[in-house]
Amino acid sequence: MLAEIITIGDEILIGQIVDTNSAWMGRELNKIGVSVKQITSVSDQAEHIINALNEAQTRADIILLTGGLGPTKDDITKLTLSKYFNMPLRRDQETLERVQTFFQKLNRPMLDINIKQADVPDGCEVIQNRNGTAPCMWFNVNGKIFVSMPGVPFEMMYLMEEEILPRLKENFDLPYIVHQTILTVGQGESYLAQQIEDIEDSLPSHIKLAYLPKLGQVRLRLSAIGKNENALKAEVAIYAQRIVERAKDYVAAEEDVPLEKAILDLMRANYLTLSTAESCTGGYISHLITQHAGSSAVFAGGAVAYSYDLKETTLGVQHKTLTEFGAVSEQTVKEMAKGAVDKFKTDYSIAVSGIAGPDGGMPGKPVGTVWIAIGAKDKVVAKLFTFGNKRIQNIERSATAALTMLLNLLKQDLK
Amino acid sequence: MLAEIITIGDEILIGQIVDTNSAWMGRELNKIGVSVKQITSVSDQAEHIINALNEAQTRADIILLTGGLGPTKDDITKLTLSKYFNMPLRRDQETLERVQTFFQKLNRPMLDINIKQADVPDGCEVIQNRNGTAPCMWFNVNGKIFVSMPGVPFEMMYLMEEEILPRLKENFDLPYIVHQTILTVGQGESYLAQQIEDIEDSLPSHIKLAYLPKLGQVRLRLSAIGKNENALKAEVAIYAQRIVERAKDYVAAEEDVPLEKAILDLMRANYLTLSTAESCTGGYISHLITQHAGSSAVFAGGAVAYSYDLKETTLGVQHKTLTEFGAVSEQTVKEMAKGAVDKFKTDYSIAVSGIAGPDGGMPGKPVGTVWIAIGAKDKVVAKLFTFGNKRIQNIERSATAALTMLLNLLKQDLK
Repeated sequence: MLAEIITIGDEILIGQIVDTNSAWMGRELNKIGVSVKQITSVSDQAEHIINALNEAQTRADIILLTGGLGPTKDDITKLTLSKYFNMPLRRDQETLERVQTFFQKLNRPMLDINIKQADVPDGCEVIQNRNGTAPCMWFNVNGKIFVSMPGVPFEMMYLMEEEILPRLKENFDLPYIVHQTILTVGQGESYLAQQIEDIEDSLPSHIKLAYLPKLGQVRLRLSAIGKNENALKAEVAIYAQRIVERAKDYVAAEEDVPLEKAILDLMRANYLTLSTAESCTGGYISHLITQHAGSSAVFAGGAVAYSYDLKETTLGVQHKTLTEFGAVSEQTVKEMAKGAVDKFKTDYSIAVSGIAGPDGGMPGKPVGTVWIAIGAKDKVVAKLFTFGNKRIQNIERSATAALTMLLNLLKQDLK
Repeated sequence: MLAEIITIGDEILIGQIVDTNSAWMGRELNKIGVSVKQITSVSDQAEHIINALNEAQTRADIILLTGGLGPTKDDITKLTLSKYFNMPLRRDQETLERVQTFFQKLNRPMLDINIKQADVPDGCEVIQNRNGTAPCMWFNVNGKIFVSMPGVPFEMMYLMEEEILPRLKENFDLPYIVHQTILTVGQGESYLAQQIEDIEDSLPSHIKLAYLPKLGQVRLRLSAIGKNENALKAEVAIYAQRIVERAKDYVAAEEDVPLEKAILDLMRANYLTLSTAESCTGGYISHLITQHAGSSAVFAGGAVAYSYDLKETTLGVQHKTLTEFGAVSEQTVKEMAKGAVDKFKTDYSIAVSGIAGPDGGMPGKPVGTVWIAIGAKDKVVAKLFTFGNKRIQNIERSATAALTMLLNLLKQDLK
């Protein structure tokens, strides 16, 4: 069963917002056996939306639209659908009452434009949106399903989870799609591809392998499609195991998890604790860690020590070290790592000090120079990296490099 | 001039990665007067790519493709373009030498599949990619420009900035597109729309207004298109100023910046410093702040105090407070805020303590309960929030709420 996602809104096309909805929807649809054939982002223009609807119908059975349902004048999705399906607007009583309640709860006056949000094309099924004012609309026309949802992520997610996905499962006899992903770190995709070439060549036609490289990591993803979920899982697991054995020096996880999650799982299973001492990464590493539920079992906390003063007071870096070698130095980053282990009483620590840029570069230490240390009870290892001149990338690459160093040390220590 | 972006790769459709490239490209293209008409994400299948190319040509003059240029078997963009344009592959000597140098520098063996990366359709112009092995290809066919770039973000960005955007400017007589965005916090879009309805109605046809709501913030974006850049800017500025005056209680910035950047700019201009004391946000707020260049002029650092112990040792929260009232309480969060101001010697501080979930809820304090405090030299203000049950959203909403509280206090103190 094929779906197409149509996102509506100029803000995506001019790059004011990143479309995170589609990736989430693609993931959830795959889980129930619906493949997304195409994602199309169009502007808030009627003829453009209509054109996208026409094209989508030639490719997909389920067309999911997000966006353009707000109360303001730039939002025209509902009017366009009304014209497209030749269904004049009617006022939906249940929606009106829900919107009224919504405004009462917020203690805000209900405006004319909000009342109009209760108008829907006569012929669609209205699905109530409990997290916002715009109703969700389900059209079943000529054997195709069209669903129009708000573009606000948490409104869309709730509607998908509670309403749309269950209805799709009911309406269609769906195949199973099984994915298994292996996360590798520290090796390039060409090398990995060569290492596992014979395994890849031996894959049956209903199983595909994809290489997804990203900042020092490569995800190897096996995807299988078929009717029998358990048989597919078993089959994919066999090929995954062959790949894992072949590439074991680089495997960080045998499932599709971020690198920091693989580390959290490993540390948790071994009752190990972690803290951070971040300078140029400014809290990004602790954010990566703490976004995962259950991270508090491993992660005690850390310091974001931007200034010299904080490096001394919160991490115990010696003033002399800072003045003699500078904040971005092997000596300082080692003292940061050791300070975190000691002060925060953890088994391991990550310390990062570097020049993220665009300013702050100096002779011998250009922008992109980053020292990373991993601290443990009885040792500290440190390494120098030279990244590029883009701030955000330097922060991300520093985080990946630090996590990779920690993982490698853990693997070694846990042998 | 209209462009279409075609992103190629199953990983986007199944939601394994979020397409951040397109937003960035949309933004950069707009700056040079190219409007993105549509963004289309397709799978790694030849017929699907060809279909997208056919459709894109009917809408756009410039078609920018990203992805599918890797050395592995799942990447078929180059072969597909070779067939589509009926241009057989030839080995490009310059590319071959560049790829050879690339592998020499990395001290890695060059594989057969890497050599093939030097093959290009005979008839395209090759643009060298200095950050990776896949070449960038520029096709000029029947008056349309097609550019195929790697999907790896930093490779694509470098090519766009250094090569593609300058060439487009040279090749076309481009109109100007001027955007001005006003960031508001703390008021809904319907209310704002009503407040400025007469201003919106008075806009000339070449200027559009869009409302972009996101977690307690609404961006109001004016967009104008025309031939005279300075005249457009002046015209848009007049309407923007009217809106700012009307909505001044909610205006956080008169440009398109994230909320934390607006705060950084305000604090920097007033020589004020900031620190953080984060529990449930786990470093996210300090990450938001430190991703901006120059943040070190304002931000000294902070503590990510996940455990009781760290709350006591790094922030000076009293043990008695934690045991008596709990970590998620007005008393604790106020001590965290005060502790940050005192220990990190800053003018202001942000402190957050809450239950991000999914675990950790308790009677009277369900998941989503978050206390936020803003500390200053002589005062601390605290506020209780009740968000939902999704961890990532709770972290994001806590950050937005904390930043909004800080902004409002700053506006009041600086009056």
